[in-house]
Amino acid sequence: MSRMLPLLRGASPRILLKPPARTVPRALISTRSTSIASLLDLKPAGPVSEIKVDGHVRSVRAQKKQHFVSLGDGSSMESLQAVVPADQAEGLTVGAAVRLGGSWVPSQGRGQSHELQVLQTSVVGPSDAKTFPVQKKYQTPEYLRTLPHLRPRVPFNSAVFRFRSEVIASLTRFFSERDFVQTHTPILTSSDCEGAGEVFHVSSGNDQPVLGGETKPFFRRPVYATVSAQLHLEALAQALGNVWTLSPTFRAEQSDTPRHLSEFYMLEAELSFIHSLDAVMNLVEDMLKHVAGDVAESRAARELLGRAGERSSDLATTEQITQRWHGLSQGAWPRITYTEAMKLLEASGDQFVHKPVWGKDLHTEHERYIATTVGNSNSPVFVTNYPRDIKAFYMKANEDDLPGTTPGATVDCFDLLVPDFCEIAGGSMREHRLENLVETMRANGMNTTSSSETAISDSSEPVDNNLDWYLDLRRWGCPPHGGFGLGFDRLICYLSGVQTIRDTTAFPRWYGRCDC
Amino acid sequence: MSRMLPLLRGASPRILLKPPARTVPRALISTRSTSIASLLDLKPAGPVSEIKVDGHVRSVRAQKKQHFVSLGDGSSMESLQAVVPADQAEGLTVGAAVRLGGSWVPSQGRGQSHELQVLQTSVVGPSDAKTFPVQKKYQTPEYLRTLPHLRPRVPFNSAVFRFRSEVIASLTRFFSERDFVQTHTPILTSSDCEGAGEVFHVSSGNDQPVLGGETKPFFRRPVYATVSAQLHLEALAQALGNVWTLSPTFRAEQSDTPRHLSEFYMLEAELSFIHSLDAVMNLVEDMLKHVAGDVAESRAARELLGRAGERSSDLATTEQITQRWHGLSQGAWPRITYTEAMKLLEASGDQFVHKPVWGKDLHTEHERYIATTVGNSNSPVFVTNYPRDIKAFYMKANEDDLPGTTPGATVDCFDLLVPDFCEIAGGSMREHRLENLVETMRANGMNTTSSSETAISDSSEPVDNNLDWYLDLRRWGCPPHGGFGLGFDRLICYLSGVQTIRDTTAFPRWYGRCDC
Repeated sequence: MSRMLPLLRGASPRILLKPPARTVPRALISTRSTSIASLLDLKPAGPVSEIKVDGHVRSVRAQKKQHFVSLGDGSSMESLQAVVPADQAEGLTVGAAVRLGGSWVPSQGRGQSHELQVLQTSVVGPSDAKTFPVQKKYQTPEYLRTLPHLRPRVPFNSAVFRFRSEVIASLTRFFSERDFVQTHTPILTSSDCEGAGEVFHVSSGNDQPVLGGETKPFFRRPVYATVSAQLHLEALAQALGNVWTLSPTFRAEQSDTPRHLSEFYMLEAELSFIHSLDAVMNLVEDMLKHVAGDVAESRAARELLGRAGERSSDLATTEQITQRWHGLSQGAWPRITYTEAMKLLEASGDQFVHKPVWGKDLHTEHERYIATTVGNSNSPVFVTNYPRDIKAFYMKANEDDLPGTTPGATVDCFDLLVPDFCEIAGGSMREHRLENLVETMRANGMNTTSSSETAISDSSEPVDNNLDWYLDLRRWGCPPHGGFGLGFDRLICYLSGVQTIRDTTAFPRWYGRCDC
Repeated sequence: MSRMLPLLRGASPRILLKPPARTVPRALISTRSTSIASLLDLKPAGPVSEIKVDGHVRSVRAQKKQHFVSLGDGSSMESLQAVVPADQAEGLTVGAAVRLGGSWVPSQGRGQSHELQVLQTSVVGPSDAKTFPVQKKYQTPEYLRTLPHLRPRVPFNSAVFRFRSEVIASLTRFFSERDFVQTHTPILTSSDCEGAGEVFHVSSGNDQPVLGGETKPFFRRPVYATVSAQLHLEALAQALGNVWTLSPTFRAEQSDTPRHLSEFYMLEAELSFIHSLDAVMNLVEDMLKHVAGDVAESRAARELLGRAGERSSDLATTEQITQRWHGLSQGAWPRITYTEAMKLLEASGDQFVHKPVWGKDLHTEHERYIATTVGNSNSPVFVTNYPRDIKAFYMKANEDDLPGTTPGATVDCFDLLVPDFCEIAGGSMREHRLENLVETMRANGMNTTSSSETAISDSSEPVDNNLDWYLDLRRWGCPPHGGFGLGFDRLICYLSGVQTIRDTTAFPRWYGRCDC
């Protein structure tokens, strides 16, 4: 069996350079190819020979003696220009996967500082250019969404997916440096914490009910695709301290908006032994400032920003995007209560389709007004202390609320609103006292065991009542705690300037659509 | 609304120190609490006052004048010893969540170098110790698995989950430094690539078939929980270059073994423009060497190692665990072909329950023999070139195989076997040529469109034939490529020494069990 030479082992073959290099790194002069991104960053005064590049042909302009080939490999939105002698150009059709070898030289043409003078070509994956559905000319996002398996080959889309990767790495560093424990919360769950209507049900192929026959469910009980990791994260926080997860969540909502997916990633964190919601809001603010700082250094982000004009219908303007980044980075973010927000809305005059009413949810138009008028130069705004009746059962009630509201009428929670995009995250202190939680659950019509019974039975049979385990967390040493959830795809949308959440992820799922 | 003082903002409240500190850090002398792990690392010669610690009471030994309280907070398997005056000890019962304030002083007792001389106590979450199901005495893993929501409060289990977090961070650094793009591959998929028997079906609550009524599926087609990200990852690799993902995968197998879960995390990576499987094996080897290096520095790993004797039935021996780490770290790992492995098995004599037969899968007993006898001092072993008929349709056939086998009879793949644990990862070169792939799929009885038709239709309707999109990837510039998948929970099991995969994840799911 052949083994590679020791020199060739180690890092993956295509990735050699990261920062822009001014001198010619030794590694480039090798039998291995280099990424187009690193080659484009390399701007030597004279020719550098023995360069090898792998990529896909984005376009070809054929002249009599030579063909000008635009090459891309996903590492850069910008293409590499390769000048190929006509007699070497066979098979260099749009879409083809090729390896080109030659010299990297200062370009005499416009549009690029350097170009590859090609000496050898090798077509490793041929392409029938006539039928290739991805074209250099503008194609609408709607059309490209019908080709999720090919769409990442559009430079714009590949930049968005690289951007997503950079944000994941930035968040992982943020939490790791702060000793948060990253956890894998379950996807399949027997806890149906939001009512059965809008969740996906999961069954094995053998569970399907057969007429006249009996079925034995795989898990012996109904199982759902999780809508949030929070309840499980609370159990982990109680044991491990500060915890976080970035994991898929699911909603079977028949939504058809640019802000909703049926499958999406949620970033959730839970803090143990905290006595004020400020600790949670501070964490969210620090985290997003950290990400915004990293984003400004990100190649993918700079590329998206640079091309913002070109795909104007698919992307916010360059000005909007930079304003968003600055808004996250600069100064402290305002924190106002729901009640204060209501007063601002009322004072603004009758400009809303839906009249703002204390006790009702904020509509998108209200959130937009608050985010725009309250934020300091495009900063996000925390809105806190929402009415208890419109928020989830697990949120802790405020005991001493602001003047003008009944004690216990509001909960210790926040929504984080950003300009243009409205709600992007939400969090709360959790009700950590058993009796209070049981009371709220009953008031919400939820099925609970009496507070003196536990989920623990003597047998190894699973417990029947699906949230008793959550009550158990309050029985033996439940410290005050709180946390938040942030829609990760929404964050990508907001930071990258992409107009719809459906274009932030490679294989989006929404009502009626689960392609591939 | 109250705002925290600027000094208190920023990082989360409990996490202040990482490396063992020899001097007293300023941050410890504050109103904030510190983690027990960082306090235990602090060994001053004289007393340090004004220390505050949050945690759960693990055990109490009451004497007339003072109570000796063992405190844990999930940051450390080792407990902190707190000496509490008897008149301050009210409510300090097993399981209670408390804040203790006092001085950190050299201990006069045995068993710890320092202890907390407590001046103030505050019970923030009371506990009825009589009913608390988690006890200090040994409890079997089987029993603890019936309490997944409380199990992380067992110091041993919390160390395993911290260990898991450290391995995730190590892998994220590894791939990020090599410019691999981290991707979120879909969980819900309409591609049923392994036959419908052992996959989970997903439907919305409104999809349930109604007698005599019609149902309209949420996604207009059958949808499954993914069994592997590979097919989608190939689409991304074609566009983005080298990609990876760590995401949940699902199997509805009725397995009841220490190596199988119904929901588990898979680490998958795909390399584009590679011409040999060696590139994939080199990546796997480098990656696991990197992780093994980080593991040796990991606090959680050191703790598990130190306690290996104490929970002997739940954990491999200290010697076994260190041998595993060394086996990963030292030297190059052997790579032998399946055919060579068969010869070794045959030459070993008749010691197997199942006779080794060329063309049949290796049984666990065979894998164990290979891993143990071929590995260099406990190194893993790559077994390559398995018979085509027992491997997946997408693997590339070998054209020039070893003597003794028919050309095309084997595929360009590997399984990675580790001592004690057998298969932990598998990978292959993928068939990148359209005609060959169509042929193999037909030979496997899979439904394919003719090779001249594509998955692309003129309408925005989803395509009907569920793997046509995968064939499409071969139509327009498919470079040679390959990748691997590694069972992440198995890796945690192997590296930590935990005996069953069910104890590597907080909420394990297997046949009949989906608690919480």
